[in-house]
Amino acid sequence: MGKMMKAVVFHGKEDLRFQEVPEPECGKGQVKIKPACDLHEYLGGPAICPTTPHPITGEQVPLTFGHEFSGTVEEVGEGVTKFKAGDRVCVQPIIYDDECGSCKEGLINCCDKNGFVGLSGWGGGLSEHVVLPEYCVIPIPDNVPLDVAALVEPLSVGWHAVAISPFKKGDSALVIGGGPIGLSVIQALKAKGCDNIIVTEVSSMRKQYAQDFGAHHILDPTKDDIVARCRELSDNKGVHMAFDAAGVQAALTSAVKAVRARGTIINIALWEKPFQLMPNDMIFRERKWIGVATYVAGDFQEVLEAISSGRMKNVEQMITKRIGLDEVVEGGFKALVKDKDRQVKILVRAGDGEV
Amino acid sequence: MGKMMKAVVFHGKEDLRFQEVPEPECGKGQVKIKPACDLHEYLGGPAICPTTPHPITGEQVPLTFGHEFSGTVEEVGEGVTKFKAGDRVCVQPIIYDDECGSCKEGLINCCDKNGFVGLSGWGGGLSEHVVLPEYCVIPIPDNVPLDVAALVEPLSVGWHAVAISPFKKGDSALVIGGGPIGLSVIQALKAKGCDNIIVTEVSSMRKQYAQDFGAHHILDPTKDDIVARCRELSDNKGVHMAFDAAGVQAALTSAVKAVRARGTIINIALWEKPFQLMPNDMIFRERKWIGVATYVAGDFQEVLEAISSGRMKNVEQMITKRIGLDEVVEGGFKALVKDKDRQVKILVRAGDGEV
Repeated sequence: MGKMMKAVVFHGKEDLRFQEVPEPECGKGQVKIKPACDLHEYLGGPAICPTTPHPITGEQVPLTFGHEFSGTVEEVGEGVTKFKAGDRVCVQPIIYDDECGSCKEGLINCCDKNGFVGLSGWGGGLSEHVVLPEYCVIPIPDNVPLDVAALVEPLSVGWHAVAISPFKKGDSALVIGGGPIGLSVIQALKAKGCDNIIVTEVSSMRKQYAQDFGAHHILDPTKDDIVARCRELSDNKGVHMAFDAAGVQAALTSAVKAVRARGTIINIALWEKPFQLMPNDMIFRERKWIGVATYVAGDFQEVLEAISSGRMKNVEQMITKRIGLDEVVEGGFKALVKDKDRQVKILVRAGDGEV
Repeated sequence: MGKMMKAVVFHGKEDLRFQEVPEPECGKGQVKIKPACDLHEYLGGPAICPTTPHPITGEQVPLTFGHEFSGTVEEVGEGVTKFKAGDRVCVQPIIYDDECGSCKEGLINCCDKNGFVGLSGWGGGLSEHVVLPEYCVIPIPDNVPLDVAALVEPLSVGWHAVAISPFKKGDSALVIGGGPIGLSVIQALKAKGCDNIIVTEVSSMRKQYAQDFGAHHILDPTKDDIVARCRELSDNKGVHMAFDAAGVQAALTSAVKAVRARGTIINIALWEKPFQLMPNDMIFRERKWIGVATYVAGDFQEVLEAISSGRMKNVEQMITKRIGLDEVVEGGFKALVKDKDRQVKILVRAGDGEV
């Protein structure tokens, strides 16, 4: 048996353990990374982690957790040309599938096999070392710290959603929900010059975050008539687009009607139940609905460039708590579950280096 | 009291009457038309006809019926420059609203007030005379007969849906339903060069029509696995787009999954109930949904050009029965209701002239 290392391992719903696992070796075309910072939402895990061997990784639970992370290159395998030991990097965790028609077209986010580093195998950011193929590794600019680089994964979700939307300067946007995805949408919209961002949110803490990140109008569905207010705030026509970052029936029903003729609903939130869509609401105004998933190649680089150039500001404010790897089980995931409204992202210092 | 004329008047659900109504006079900016041929689907009427004064026309039931028609200009009012008595025309029945933001942008089909000649007032094609504003009147090319010109309205529905879709040559298309709207989509796709049209339909008569109009593959949801067959017939990726011309839950649920990554669902059918949309089906393949409504300025002219030039063929085969104005109540609408699968469009000869 080879060397062992510490890792946070997902064994099943509400069963995360801080334990020893084998340290991975760096093979051909691979990069060995020492994770520095990882962020994660516990709730997303169980639905995606395979309980039978994953078709690409061949692994199943228990699995090392963590797919939102940055770190430092420790070692590179044969044939790796873009990286060397000491490089500061972040990780694009989607696993490419050679046999998938979508992956071949560059739509790695539409892959039939849906493989993710830190969720489907190949280790994860909540460990002392991780070995990944070169295509998962993204270099970070010198002026972007490692803690901020860990935020590039969640920020890429909002960035991708705005990039795939028809947003252009001058458009108004409704963001449904001020959780981490909603905030990443707000940040992408701000970076792209949106000057009319309307957020609908119930939690007072999340309303505050939305305002801090630059939303122009904060509405509360328990008090405001969302459709009427959106019309008022958008030339009496309704918003150009609405981003669903909540996955709640009543909120999205209003949002559909709050969108102007030929406007767009961009659906990012995952839904456990069906959405009761009134097709006539879509037809009579020729509205569009776009489903968007995570990110594709290029999104991480664009987010890093937006941060590095200052177009995307104050992103580190998304980190609302900082803990060590050994504190993850009690202080991290459980806090996110119990204290959902107050925490945006909890940063885990995986290594002992400076961040 | 002025001159009277014969008309088919809608008094309420299942209450159509062939009766005398006042003959309209041709005012400033208006064109008086002698309808030649009208087509209609009875079922669509009751939901749209106003039972309180319509915000634009000021009229309410009883109302003269008929919004799919062609005819001959009898008289033009002051200021009308594009038409003269004797011109052969068809009618674009959407009523423009001066106060509507959508109408001002050219999106007459997204109007808040939703006014239609032959449904919301201003008379209709099922009468001896009708007076309309010049913008509703479309000249028809010499080689397009009046009966075919009456088909331009339903054909424009399919034409508009394909025009608004991302269709480009080489794309595959699934058409859900082989009724009149489905057939108009097939004809638009054929005219635009689609060489992979897949139709899903249960009725054997409608399957036959779909084939006659040029569909390449006919599937039956009671026998075929729609998702699997669509993949097989489209490079193992799924169709590029699916047109919903049926409004049936099970059919559209399959169709969503039959569409490839980043493919599009184009929803034309009106729905009385909500559609149970699984947002995750949209998200994980980044699919799009577009609601489309009737047509906008330009669609009628494009359809007429496609017919005139021969790109759109055999459209008169959509007329499955021909009757007189006095036969409408018994022979027309009731036949459509009773004999829904066998009839596509019943043509009503409103006038006594040659068609």
